[in-house]
Amino acid sequence: MEILEPARIADELERVRDHWHPRVVGRVNDQYVKVAKLLGELVWHDHADEDEMFLVVYGRLRIQLEGDREVVLEPGQFFVVPRGVQHNPIADEEVGIVLIETVTTAHTGSVQTERTVPIDEQL
Amino acid sequence: MEILEPARIADELERVRDHWHPRVVGRVNDQYVKVAKLLGELVWHDHADEDEMFLVVYGRLRIQLEGDREVVLEPGQFFVVPRGVQHNPIADEEVGIVLIETVTTAHTGSVQTERTVPIDEQL
Repeated sequence: MEILEPARIADELERVRDHWHPRVVGRVNDQYVKVAKLLGELVWHDHADEDEMFLVVYGRLRIQLEGDREVVLEPGQFFVVPRGVQHNPIADEEVGIVLIETVTTAHTGSVQTERTVPIDEQL
Repeated sequence: MEILEPARIADELERVRDHWHPRVVGRVNDQYVKVAKLLGELVWHDHADEDEMFLVVYGRLRIQLEGDREVVLEPGQFFVVPRGVQHNPIADEEVGIVLIETVTTAHTGSVQTERTVPIDEQL
């Protein structure tokens, strides 16, 4: 039995150096809790079998979705991108987020880009 | 394919009427995202096979843990109570939280109290 200490989201975000490089800060059941800083645009991708939850801590996050949809998230707002839905996160200015996703979720789905960060580099 | 709207945690918390009555506001994979208002003490219990994540939005939450431990969470802090660990949340003043737990998690584990809220009343 391991009992970890409480974590402060703002502190965990402060330790993040690179944009688009999520950092695992906790685990609840089969989901990782991650923090990330975003700036600019990631890439269109989906996760075939896994939902992905975005919670904005600071800044303003746009998530483009297939079918010409877009959701805009401000601090304190969250959104779950359903499995199998093509999406593309865009941060016009820096955004700090909490991500919740299955431990097996690949960063940019089946799309490989220069920005793709494998899970062992997120730990 | 269902794409829901973004949700604002503060608004979701505002809709909560009763203390210790979690409200499901989202789902990511096999986890429910819930909000709840706490005041006073719940009851000692555990969830044999399920971790439970507490994120404090406002107020100050104490979580007593087996082995004479206690963690204190302030706004922006989170803590995961590991599966099988006896715990007892205490809110000396009102606390607003986000909870993340498996869809099958029973409110007060195998302990039934007047405060136990079955999942169908949390939806």
